[in-house]
Amino acid sequence: MYGGYSYIDKKYKPGKDDFIVLFWMDGHAKIEKLAEAVASESSVGTWTKIKTMNAKVFREYRARIFKIIKVTENSGFVYMAYPWQHFDQKNVLQFYAGVLGNLFGLKELEDCYVLDVKLPEKYQKQFSGPGFGMEGIRKYVGTKKNRRPHVGTIVKPKVGLTPKEFSEVAYKAWSGGLDLVKDDENLVDQKFCPWKKRFDLVSKALDKAEQETGEKKLYATNITDSSIDRMIERLEYVKDSGMKMIMLDVYILGIPALMEMVNEAKKAKLFIHAHRAGYAAHHRGNFGVNFAIYERFWRMIGVDQLHIGTGVGKMEGGTLWINHLHKLAQDYEIPEKFYLGSLGQTWIKTIKPLFAVASGGMDPGRVDAAVALHGKDVIIQAGGGVHGHPGGTMAGARALRQAADAVVEGIPAPEYAKTHKELAQALKHWGYIKPKQIKDKLAFEKKKRSFLTKTVKNRGMAGIRSIWEL
Amino acid sequence: MYGGYSYIDKKYKPGKDDFIVLFWMDGHAKIEKLAEAVASESSVGTWTKIKTMNAKVFREYRARIFKIIKVTENSGFVYMAYPWQHFDQKNVLQFYAGVLGNLFGLKELEDCYVLDVKLPEKYQKQFSGPGFGMEGIRKYVGTKKNRRPHVGTIVKPKVGLTPKEFSEVAYKAWSGGLDLVKDDENLVDQKFCPWKKRFDLVSKALDKAEQETGEKKLYATNITDSSIDRMIERLEYVKDSGMKMIMLDVYILGIPALMEMVNEAKKAKLFIHAHRAGYAAHHRGNFGVNFAIYERFWRMIGVDQLHIGTGVGKMEGGTLWINHLHKLAQDYEIPEKFYLGSLGQTWIKTIKPLFAVASGGMDPGRVDAAVALHGKDVIIQAGGGVHGHPGGTMAGARALRQAADAVVEGIPAPEYAKTHKELAQALKHWGYIKPKQIKDKLAFEKKKRSFLTKTVKNRGMAGIRSIWEL
Repeated sequence: MYGGYSYIDKKYKPGKDDFIVLFWMDGHAKIEKLAEAVASESSVGTWTKIKTMNAKVFREYRARIFKIIKVTENSGFVYMAYPWQHFDQKNVLQFYAGVLGNLFGLKELEDCYVLDVKLPEKYQKQFSGPGFGMEGIRKYVGTKKNRRPHVGTIVKPKVGLTPKEFSEVAYKAWSGGLDLVKDDENLVDQKFCPWKKRFDLVSKALDKAEQETGEKKLYATNITDSSIDRMIERLEYVKDSGMKMIMLDVYILGIPALMEMVNEAKKAKLFIHAHRAGYAAHHRGNFGVNFAIYERFWRMIGVDQLHIGTGVGKMEGGTLWINHLHKLAQDYEIPEKFYLGSLGQTWIKTIKPLFAVASGGMDPGRVDAAVALHGKDVIIQAGGGVHGHPGGTMAGARALRQAADAVVEGIPAPEYAKTHKELAQALKHWGYIKPKQIKDKLAFEKKKRSFLTKTVKNRGMAGIRSIWEL
Repeated sequence: MYGGYSYIDKKYKPGKDDFIVLFWMDGHAKIEKLAEAVASESSVGTWTKIKTMNAKVFREYRARIFKIIKVTENSGFVYMAYPWQHFDQKNVLQFYAGVLGNLFGLKELEDCYVLDVKLPEKYQKQFSGPGFGMEGIRKYVGTKKNRRPHVGTIVKPKVGLTPKEFSEVAYKAWSGGLDLVKDDENLVDQKFCPWKKRFDLVSKALDKAEQETGEKKLYATNITDSSIDRMIERLEYVKDSGMKMIMLDVYILGIPALMEMVNEAKKAKLFIHAHRAGYAAHHRGNFGVNFAIYERFWRMIGVDQLHIGTGVGKMEGGTLWINHLHKLAQDYEIPEKFYLGSLGQTWIKTIKPLFAVASGGMDPGRVDAAVALHGKDVIIQAGGGVHGHPGGTMAGARALRQAADAVVEGIPAPEYAKTHKELAQALKHWGYIKPKQIKDKLAFEKKKRSFLTKTVKNRGMAGIRSIWEL
């Protein structure tokens, strides 16, 4: 409260240039007090009244709490609006420092989770979005008309193979029908597999596979490094070799290095494959930042393909949630869904659709289910689900491609397997997940929105987390 | 298990070049299974057996679980050793991608917290540490002999003041006796207070204050930005203006941008004041990364002063814990303490001591307690606790400096206040925290180590968290 104004202002109608933020909070004080402490720490206040405050500052630049959905006396969902003029607009980190910053350290909080951030159009206009995005990659690979899912693999084991062993695995994967081969996230430039030597051999393997299959192939080479110079050097080398893609681990990279590398990649006309190692500590923690917030920034800054989870594999995230993340990656209008903790988003046209990657515990028997969830506009990546095939990597690649081809022909994998032996072997080895399971959940969501909403109003964040895993 | 080797190897004795990592895990499987899943995902494995694995890879590059302290069937502390040759050694992000990466997303985990990482000497040798560190800053300010705590303030309100208003507040703070003035973390280059205009006016204010007081003053100007070019441009401007310090928000910056800026700052001979907005989501979350891990990397990469918490203010962290973080910042030998989740650390001599900053809810009445916790080698920063003084900023600055001077003279603040009116006003306004409270807790720790250890063995991570807040 200052000069007649307060942080809580339930009559406030957010303007079109405001940043809207949705928090979950729980702590040692009433929810209103917690909300005020966060509004204060993330905008103009501090823990004690100060002599240097003036009415103009408080009126113009403070965060406004315009809605609280109380779950208990000490917990609830808090909607805040931050005014445009509060921000150093071009500087993404200034937004992070304020809204994803000190507030997490406040003693009185026991939980503090930033569920979502809705970015105004005016903000988006400062960014150029993906250089190529989904359509650019489909055009290169030749799948703009035949819109089958792309299929890819991560060379396994994650680390330890020599460049020669690695390139042989890559060759088999492409040769078997995959579009994409990528490095694992913890492989960059170790002594047992130096980056340059690996890259050179893999490039040759790619050329050979392209000639033999008549298809365009992609290699997402992991150039993620703590040295920006080394990353740029490698990016130049990729470009000069006539290869088309780099891989960046975008969460650990941090925003400034990402922006630098995106600029370089756009100049060099390279696709960016974005891996997201580390995001899950934030996403799943009781003090945390939702993945959907990072996804927005990465789309806006401009990577081309991004890991968003599978909904059917080894990593966190269920059907409704991954479906939402998929929309956030590829659609222009994403609906608000309180029961998922989503504020919705409208993208301006220049922020092109990303190509979403479903990766983590995938195998050919999960392709039908993945497509039921993601649609055909998805890159399905399997590591163990290719190299663990009883017939080895090439057979695994064939099985995965067969599963993707079956989708386009509208034939369920078990049916298609009758005439495709590698797929049959894969289904026998790993089993088959029916797409019906996914369709039922999506239908359930459509019918039961008010039930889902009620669950969250009663159970708070625990309710949302249970829906995220449905 | 592969070729006679397994992830769990309780007879394994970590070598001097191994990276040791301590995890807390809780989940839907037995603790041994969870530990294996994490060892696998963060080193050479995946969710299914693969044909491309070979015995050499598994033997040489896998993570080894050499100790498990079980708390329940499904939870416990897990000690892992990662071999030197596993890593791309110069590339800090490759370490992050492996050890702080995908593992957080594994479905079977309900909690996964990386408590500590012990870095081998061989690794440290690749880094040069702080350019100046504590002693360099003390030398500049002239407090190498008279080792009083440094005192500083953050200009408040956090955002909203004009450059003129801002520089007037800064002048009063220095003039009242403070060594350091800093920008708040969410102030960089907003329209209401453009960076360059603010910097120019503050530089003039600093010159004036130095002439009038005969003391060296420092301004930590926040140049944190998502554009590396803009950061470098500002750093050059700081150098060309003859000023001595920059502020970076090191957690949100990310490692590559930090390394770039540290290099530039070292070339320009500028001190780096490191703020840590955002760390607390990781640090406090049930899926998380302990601050002590980041602290190690930042010391090794080479910032000069770093926020580590106060133990007596508005932010998380109690006496025993902040005392530990203080040692990790300034000592060369930090003991292992299981009940704090610490593996200990030995620093090589070139990784100089950082100057620790105690900031967040401080005021003059807390200085004696802060010194009981940190010793005199600390920078005590108060924002609200200066500008909220009943007499305004200059009186608040005087009070804080008086409290620091009293420490050196060995006089308790309430006693010193009898002859120093600003300090008396501050104590009346905010109260006084007795150093005895802190000393008692430190004495308790010394006497009750086996009790604390037992608490953690019985209660697991909840036990550690309770000790962290003592």
